Amino acid sequence: MSIKRVNFNEYAPEVLDQLKKGAFLTVKDGDEVNTMTIGWGSVSVIWNKPIFMVAVRYSRHTYNLIENAKEFTVNIPLNNDLKKELAYCGTKSGRDLDKFAEYNLTLIDGQKISTPVIGECELHYECKVVYQQAMEPATLNDEIKNRFYKNNDYHVLYFGEILDTYLLEK
Amino acid sequence: MSIKRVNFNEYAPEVLDQLKKGAFLTVKDGDEVNTMTIGWGSVSVIWNKPIFMVAVRYSRHTYNLIENAKEFTVNIPLNNDLKKELAYCGTKSGRDLDKFAEYNLTLIDGQKISTPVIGECELHYECKVVYQQAMEPATLNDEIKNRFYKNNDYHVLYFGEILDTYLLEK
Repeated sequence: MSIKRVNFNEYAPEVLDQLKKGAFLTVKDGDEVNTMTIGWGSVSVIWNKPIFMVAVRYSRHTYNLIENAKEFTVNIPLNNDLKKELAYCGTKSGRDLDKFAEYNLTLIDGQKISTPVIGECELHYECKVVYQQAMEPATLNDEIKNRFYKNNDYHVLYFGEILDTYLLEK
Repeated sequence: MSIKRVNFNEYAPEVLDQLKKGAFLTVKDGDEVNTMTIGWGSVSVIWNKPIFMVAVRYSRHTYNLIENAKEFTVNIPLNNDLKKELAYCGTKSGRDLDKFAEYNLTLIDGQKISTPVIGECELHYECKVVYQQAMEPATLNDEIKNRFYKNNDYHVLYFGEILDTYLLEK
């Protein structure tokens, strides 16, 4: 595999399109690596930095990992659709099993952080958390609250400074 | 002028590039319209919706307006550089003067909301605030805190559902 670096914003349209179908949020805490399917995210400039924001519910295994790790990678399928893998990683919990083993997903070392990326995805962001904030129910639109948070399992928003953005090419 | 609708994510790379040089955040509260220069922002998918996030400090006149208005437009220069206008709207306060008058900026009615857009900019987002959150100093990276918030004048993050995205063409 070879790495082709790209600007953080170059693939923003493709990322925002793919998020509707799913992308992978990968987190490593100590020796434990886990990934989960995400459908939401943002490509931003904040504090004069390129920022990728992701949202993780308290109930997720990833929440416990990222709270320690304070870094993450976002792995975006572009040509490979990885539908089965996305469905699997969005419904199973890494508490119970090794998600990578089921579909032989390949972990490749990160370039700038210790969190790996998934080799079957083409586009990758390596991010260091510079800010995080638990969602505040009081100022959230009621329609959204009723649709997504009836059980009070809110998201924590993690703002990751993008340290590297690249395509993995075969 | 004619309107050409585009997908919310289509111009994300250009928006994120232009933010470094500046864009306009326009807010209308009752009969009062004001605009300010912004250098930060995000193009996102959150709660299954297209979202534009902007950040406004408590000290800004725009803060008082948007707290009532709960909607905003983001006006992005693409070909016109509008350097003087951006510098002016980033240093003067709408409390003291009518920013639009100084450079004869043209206000054009919004399509989906009551907030206008600036005709001299090419690309426009019309947004309704669905969530907002004051920044939480405790979980912010120290380097960022020292660089931007020594005076405790933090930002409030406004998450606006993008109701319309279009180019204004002559």
